[in-house]
Amino acid sequence: MQGTLEFLKGIFINKNEDLTILGKLIKIALIFLLVKIGIKIFNTIIDKSMERKSRLKFGVDEKKANTLAAILKNLSKYVFYFIGLVPALELFGIKTTSILATAGIGGLAIGFGAQSLVKDVITGFFILFEDQFSVGDYVKVEGYEGIVEEMGLRVTKIRGFSGELYIIPNSNIQIVTNGTKGAMRSLVEVSISYEEDIDKAMKVLEKICKELKDTENSIVEGPTVLGVSKLGEYDIVLTIVAKTDAMEQWRIERILRKRIKEEFDNENIEIPYPKRVVIEKKV
Amino acid sequence: MQGTLEFLKGIFINKNEDLTILGKLIKIALIFLLVKIGIKIFNTIIDKSMERKSRLKFGVDEKKANTLAAILKNLSKYVFYFIGLVPALELFGIKTTSILATAGIGGLAIGFGAQSLVKDVITGFFILFEDQFSVGDYVKVEGYEGIVEEMGLRVTKIRGFSGELYIIPNSNIQIVTNGTKGAMRSLVEVSISYEEDIDKAMKVLEKICKELKDTENSIVEGPTVLGVSKLGEYDIVLTIVAKTDAMEQWRIERILRKRIKEEFDNENIEIPYPKRVVIEKKV
Amino acid sequence: MQGTLEFLKGIFINKNEDLTILGKLIKIALIFLLVKIGIKIFNTIIDKSMERKSRLKFGVDEKKANTLAAILKNLSKYVFYFIGLVPALELFGIKTTSILATAGIGGLAIGFGAQSLVKDVITGFFILFEDQFSVGDYVKVEGYEGIVEEMGLRVTKIRGFSGELYIIPNSNIQIVTNGTKGAMRSLVEVSISYEEDIDKAMKVLEKICKELKDTENSIVEGPTVLGVSKLGEYDIVLTIVAKTDAMEQWRIERILRKRIKEEFDNENIEIPYPKRVVIEKKV
Amino acid sequence: MQGTLEFLKGIFINKNEDLTILGKLIKIALIFLLVKIGIKIFNTIIDKSMERKSRLKFGVDEKKANTLAAILKNLSKYVFYFIGLVPALELFGIKTTSILATAGIGGLAIGFGAQSLVKDVITGFFILFEDQFSVGDYVKVEGYEGIVEEMGLRVTKIRGFSGELYIIPNSNIQIVTNGTKGAMRSLVEVSISYEEDIDKAMKVLEKICKELKDTENSIVEGPTVLGVSKLGEYDIVLTIVAKTDAMEQWRIERILRKRIKEEFDNENIEIPYPKRVVIEKKV
Amino acid sequence: MQGTLEFLKGIFINKNEDLTILGKLIKIALIFLLVKIGIKIFNTIIDKSMERKSRLKFGVDEKKANTLAAILKNLSKYVFYFIGLVPALELFGIKTTSILATAGIGGLAIGFGAQSLVKDVITGFFILFEDQFSVGDYVKVEGYEGIVEEMGLRVTKIRGFSGELYIIPNSNIQIVTNGTKGAMRSLVEVSISYEEDIDKAMKVLEKICKELKDTENSIVEGPTVLGVSKLGEYDIVLTIVAKTDAMEQWRIERILRKRIKEEFDNENIEIPYPKRVVIEKKV
Amino acid sequence: MQGTLEFLKGIFINKNEDLTILGKLIKIALIFLLVKIGIKIFNTIIDKSMERKSRLKFGVDEKKANTLAAILKNLSKYVFYFIGLVPALELFGIKTTSILATAGIGGLAIGFGAQSLVKDVITGFFILFEDQFSVGDYVKVEGYEGIVEEMGLRVTKIRGFSGELYIIPNSNIQIVTNGTKGAMRSLVEVSISYEEDIDKAMKVLEKICKELKDTENSIVEGPTVLGVSKLGEYDIVLTIVAKTDAMEQWRIERILRKRIKEEFDNENIEIPYPKRVVIEKKV
Amino acid sequence: MQGTLEFLKGIFINKNEDLTILGKLIKIALIFLLVKIGIKIFNTIIDKSMERKSRLKFGVDEKKANTLAAILKNLSKYVFYFIGLVPALELFGIKTTSILATAGIGGLAIGFGAQSLVKDVITGFFILFEDQFSVGDYVKVEGYEGIVEEMGLRVTKIRGFSGELYIIPNSNIQIVTNGTKGAMRSLVEVSISYEEDIDKAMKVLEKICKELKDTENSIVEGPTVLGVSKLGEYDIVLTIVAKTDAMEQWRIERILRKRIKEEFDNENIEIPYPKRVVIEKKV
Repeated sequence: MQGTLEFLKGIFINKNEDLTILGKLIKIALIFLLVKIGIKIFNTIIDKSMERKSRLKFGVDEKKANTLAAILKNLSKYVFYFIGLVPALELFGIKTTSILATAGIGGLAIGFGAQSLVKDVITGFFILFEDQFSVGDYVKVEGYEGIVEEMGLRVTKIRGFSGELYIIPNSNIQIVTNGTKGAMRSLVEVSISYEEDIDKAMKVLEKICKELKDTENSIVEGPTVLGVSKLGEYDIVLTIVAKTDAMEQWRIERILRKRIKEEFDNENIEIPYPKRVVIEKKV
Repeated sequence: MQGTLEFLKGIFINKNEDLTILGKLIKIALIFLLVKIGIKIFNTIIDKSMERKSRLKFGVDEKKANTLAAILKNLSKYVFYFIGLVPALELFGIKTTSILATAGIGGLAIGFGAQSLVKDVITGFFILFEDQFSVGDYVKVEGYEGIVEEMGLRVTKIRGFSGELYIIPNSNIQIVTNGTKGAMRSLVEVSISYEEDIDKAMKVLEKICKELKDTENSIVEGPTVLGVSKLGEYDIVLTIVAKTDAMEQWRIERILRKRIKEEFDNENIEIPYPKRVVIEKKV
Repeated sequence: MQGTLEFLKGIFINKNEDLTILGKLIKIALIFLLVKIGIKIFNTIIDKSMERKSRLKFGVDEKKANTLAAILKNLSKYVFYFIGLVPALELFGIKTTSILATAGIGGLAIGFGAQSLVKDVITGFFILFEDQFSVGDYVKVEGYEGIVEEMGLRVTKIRGFSGELYIIPNSNIQIVTNGTKGAMRSLVEVSISYEEDIDKAMKVLEKICKELKDTENSIVEGPTVLGVSKLGEYDIVLTIVAKTDAMEQWRIERILRKRIKEEFDNENIEIPYPKRVVIEKKV
Repeated sequence: MQGTLEFLKGIFINKNEDLTILGKLIKIALIFLLVKIGIKIFNTIIDKSMERKSRLKFGVDEKKANTLAAILKNLSKYVFYFIGLVPALELFGIKTTSILATAGIGGLAIGFGAQSLVKDVITGFFILFEDQFSVGDYVKVEGYEGIVEEMGLRVTKIRGFSGELYIIPNSNIQIVTNGTKGAMRSLVEVSISYEEDIDKAMKVLEKICKELKDTENSIVEGPTVLGVSKLGEYDIVLTIVAKTDAMEQWRIERILRKRIKEEFDNENIEIPYPKRVVIEKKV
Repeated sequence: MQGTLEFLKGIFINKNEDLTILGKLIKIALIFLLVKIGIKIFNTIIDKSMERKSRLKFGVDEKKANTLAAILKNLSKYVFYFIGLVPALELFGIKTTSILATAGIGGLAIGFGAQSLVKDVITGFFILFEDQFSVGDYVKVEGYEGIVEEMGLRVTKIRGFSGELYIIPNSNIQIVTNGTKGAMRSLVEVSISYEEDIDKAMKVLEKICKELKDTENSIVEGPTVLGVSKLGEYDIVLTIVAKTDAMEQWRIERILRKRIKEEFDNENIEIPYPKRVVIEKKV
Repeated sequence: MQGTLEFLKGIFINKNEDLTILGKLIKIALIFLLVKIGIKIFNTIIDKSMERKSRLKFGVDEKKANTLAAILKNLSKYVFYFIGLVPALELFGIKTTSILATAGIGGLAIGFGAQSLVKDVITGFFILFEDQFSVGDYVKVEGYEGIVEEMGLRVTKIRGFSGELYIIPNSNIQIVTNGTKGAMRSLVEVSISYEEDIDKAMKVLEKICKELKDTENSIVEGPTVLGVSKLGEYDIVLTIVAKTDAMEQWRIERILRKRIKEEFDNENIEIPYPKRVVIEKKV
Repeated sequence: MQGTLEFLKGIFINKNEDLTILGKLIKIALIFLLVKIGIKIFNTIIDKSMERKSRLKFGVDEKKANTLAAILKNLSKYVFYFIGLVPALELFGIKTTSILATAGIGGLAIGFGAQSLVKDVITGFFILFEDQFSVGDYVKVEGYEGIVEEMGLRVTKIRGFSGELYIIPNSNIQIVTNGTKGAMRSLVEVSISYEEDIDKAMKVLEKICKELKDTENSIVEGPTVLGVSKLGEYDIVLTIVAKTDAMEQWRIERILRKRIKEEFDNENIEIPYPKRVVIEKKV
């Protein structure tokens, strides 16, 4: 008996570690206690941040939030047990480098794959924090434009003018064009014929501008007739510019166009068709 | 005899490790027992997640799932034995850094190669979790558009209008355009001649809009005549816009176009051919 | 004599390792035995997977497979000897970090270079596993389209309609368009003149559609006349759509076009030439 | 009693470390004291840099700065506790490699994700430090052009001419085109007919240039008539160039165009319409 | 004397290593012997692979091969001495981590730079191994097309039709289009006027096809008249397709075009000029 | 007393390190002395390189240089204290791996972010060292062209012809096109009618070339009439080429164009308008 | 006295290292001796490779080479001292991990930044070694084409036809198009009218080809009339092809064009203007 015990003791006790089997078992119990505590703390953190989120403006669907919390808790449990397993094995003198290496490579693959997820959240945080746009704003992002319908840490949803819903992961959002902050510009270009009197046409345009300014409240500045912006192939192009309330710029442009056509008709100013000189040769 | 034993003991027993050969063998047995248990647990996890999956909505072909499970189990076996081999060799004082380094480089190469696989699954998870689209939705992804036919963790299958099936790995899905959620827009642009009376044409269009609203249930909002959206080279462009049920927008546009042509014929409003002024010079 | 021996013993025996030269040599023999066994196992694995492969559907040329196996065995031999060399040198107290570092950097360079090879195999596996396409399918991949002629773990070969053979490494295959699974669409657009009666033209087209449906077995659905799909510069565009068996869609389109032209001739419906209004000015 | 104590001492005291439990506890207390001090110092640094920032030109919203400071302090607390936890566990002989590996992979994922944040700040610093542009400058960045409205370490805001606000993360700013530093160029190209006398046209243009130079103060250099810059399909193109104060170039161009048209009318110099020779064949 | 010796011994002999200076020197000699052997083996491997290469099909210039071998041997010598230096220094208790770190960073920079070299060789190997193309084949690679003139492990040389020589590093070769393996397609599109009889034109084309099939041996399949492939702006397009021997497709197309023109002339079938309807308005 | 001291000694003195507390404190003092010296040396290096820089040609603003120096000194101080902190903590037996890991990940993030900064400096160094261009040269870089106004280690400033200042980080400079080193080419293409005599036109052009060569000093070689460079749709294109002093090429081209037009008028050689044959059909 | 010495000895001598202070100092002296030797060897290597380079064909400016050598020597000095500093500090029991980590991150940043420098040299070496082109060759690289003016390990300089000098870092050189090795192709396409006799035109062209072959020595093969390469909108296109000495292809093409025009004039073969059928409708 004594000999066997001695022998077993010899197996599991490295002299230069001087720890009895019992001591080791107590230590392992301690480790897994710490693991349990770690899991508890992590779960509490998740629950709390879910609560806080639900009180914030993100209208996250509660059911989804719960699902996500459950998944995160489940995954974290595996991670914590792995963290505890390694020192436990080491206590019995089993080298765990190969476990660590295997887990490390797996972890790296996941880490690289999850990279854009992290980017989503970081970019999403800054969009919200810096107030780059809010729900209801008219924005352009990576060639997609429309009204922001929903903002989140991972994706932003934009309703295009065609009615389509663009779902954009935040990491894809780089340069944001916000068409709601401040006054927007209305710009109308009108062609007149080379035979026309420029000054007369500009006076007519200025009259229209003055009228419009008085009747439209959404106009912030102008409209102003800038002058001759192009000597084209067959026309002289005059440009009118105005500043309007956001989202009103297109309506003002449409009104301007209609008014110009009508007034030009009255004043006998021609909007020219393309012209071409043809030199005929008979064969 | 005694001397030889002593000698052999000297070879395999490092004094500062104080472990007999027998003790080492017992330890190795223990290690491989742990490896066996690890394999068992891993297999159970795979089986369970396969089961759970089959109960979920993913219509994964059972035969394929089994094949995949078998492959995963097989591969994991090699990994677990490798994890056990390293500490076993270490016990006999054989440095395993070179094994670890070799395996590590191989692992890295595989890890990098498998990176987009991980991305597929992560993106796939979020598409499903965030309900970005469902089977039957009309979506546009990376320039491919059509009806979603199948969704999975790795690939999404979309049936294009041309009948072709687009098989898109989820990691290639970034910005999703969903054309099923909410009302879509019908937009028709009509040209009238510069000689035409704008107001008259707009009245005719408004009449058509009113009629259509009454007869078509799929129209949600409008149709409205926006006004003069362009003063073109040879035509005045008027724009009509409506909101319709999803997927109905093209039909409404076709009806609108037909009605406009017919009504313009009745009212003698000309849809102009391209016009050009030709100044003739004889040689 | 005794002194020299003592001295030599002093060189090769570190007191705190307590291993005789003989013991060390035996250990080295053991290491290289393990290396030999490792090489054997690896060779067996390669041979077996070659065998299994030859029983599968991949029509891999046997000679090529043998060459590849020989190369792999040869390379692996170097790797295994390297794995054995390092602990052997360590036994004699020679630090091998510099060897490992050198081999590691070389290995990394190769690992990075071989990355796309790994990707080829992983993507190839999923194409086969998920049945994305089979030999004989008509597919489009990265702008290359044609009939799949050969599928493998590393490359896919597609025969284009021009007769050319496209050899595509699987890692270059991302989004696959399969034009064989399911019914394909035939789409024909016909122009009629603005002076034509739309209803009359549509009736003629519908008659053609009905006829064709009865005579062509490869038609799955339709053909249907959708309506006015465009009010063009000089023409009204009507669109006809049908669903046909895969690969038959182009033939059906050609037949439709011929029938439409013939029937329009009978019914005196004009397919218009481009029209332009010319306003002449003499100089 | 004595035995139990001895036993417990045996568990927690590794002989070759020779530290009593009490000693260990004191050491842990010391570690967490250092952690507390570390947190304090970090918080002080943040507070100070916030203060300094508020005294600088960046008009950072104070409320936002406080929020950011609070978040940073909160995050850093977790990091410091983690730094303290590891040596504490090590003191009780618990190997922490698995904790470190797990934290390391998580940290790497965050590090990669945060990479562009670091780039934002570095690029932002150099834009400010090198005075690449200031608020009010007219710049072009990555295809977006307008007046700089706000500069920061992370984003730059530019107000486009269309009224839209471009919000550009600094890491997206590579090549900057500054249109405010120095004199800008006005360039007008005028077409004359092939039948026209080039010298006469150039003299007229030079007269206009001279006049304009005298009347416009914003002109720095020129305008100069460069000469025949193109023999076009139907016209000889003459080019006029001037240097003006920044942002005045477009106005000068508009004036030049108007003056040229007027003067050419006076001098009977024709700006030609496109010309084409038509060889008629009767069928 | 004895004291000095004792002292020196004290400097160079760490008691817990128990190795005399002489012993250390012998060990160093042993290390450098191993280094020498390593260099020898490496040189032999290079020489052998050079020999083997010269017996293979790669027509590598012998002089160049020798130069490359010399460079490789020279570089490897430095590497091997570095591998020997580190353990030698370690023997004298000099920590070499800083040397290793410095060499490692340098090595990494070179490794990354050499990455595409490794890719060249791997891709080159697979091109040769998989027989993707051979010298004399007509291929298209990354937009460069022509006859393959030379194949190697690092670069592939293609002679374009313009006579230019394209030198393509193998790592740039991804998708290969081989125009030599199998029959190629000739495709000719012919326009006929809308006024023409389609059936008559098709009969004429079929006659030409039949004739050509009999006279040209290089035709593998067809030529076939497919039918009406387009209803164009002013023409009906008919398409003829044939399969020919590789590289003969263009000649067959040229013959087909000439024959069609001649036969259409005989049969009075018009190949139409672009047509346009002009509606004249006098001002 | 003695016992407490013994106890404290027990806490802070690991027997197998055999260092008294006092000894440790002295060692820490030594470490921080070294840190102080390190900071001093670093500051001196920065000051010296600033001085040297100010004597060189880079016209770096002195104030900015001082700011930068101050920032660098400040940052380096933190780094040096961190370097000293770690071994100090280690002396008291506190494991610092967690500190190192945290700092390492932060450092990596900064390192990656600063990568392009390093690239800027390296590329900048080579541009200066290899004399790729100098201030005043006319260069094209990444699509931006103009006169180099300022060169530095981080950015290059180019003044475009439009007056705009392009600020280009050196890492964005890859292929440089220098239009100042050597003689530049003037190229003028002239159209003549198909009815014209080619030889006559070439003689006229040659006469102009001869004249110009005599009158213009900036011409280095030529101008030469190359011959018929294109048989166009309606014109025969003749090309004239000359080599001129850098930046003079455009002026020479303008002169050539004017002279050709004038001489062609004298010799009655027509520069043709686009020609088209019209076959009229009456309906 | 004795006590203080004992005490000091206690500080600096770790019992389990058994080295006296003097011994340590001697060891440090040894280390720095080795560092000095290392610097010497490195400097010698640089000097020798500079010498060898100056004897080779690279016309590297001697002054620049010296500057570069001086910079390299200076930098390497810092690196060598750093390598020596670390083991010296370690000797006094100061852990240097934090120094190594800091240096490592800095080194990595530099390593990544220098990556393209390494790539430059490797690519440059292979361009020279494989003789991809030589000074005086006409090459196309990444869209830049011209005569190679200078080749080096880092950059290649190409003189474009416009006179501009392209300075291309070798790492930007991937696919090289060499237009000097072998015979180049001249290709001329001639349009004839649909009314023309194809055979007659081909005979005329063949006559020209025959003549040219006899008079031009630079023609290697051909010129040959290929046949009808296109049935265009209004013309039949005939193609002539020849092989010429490199750089002579454009001259031959110009001569061919001139000869064809002249001979067609003689033979009354029309090169057609664009033709269009116009169907007139009066309103």
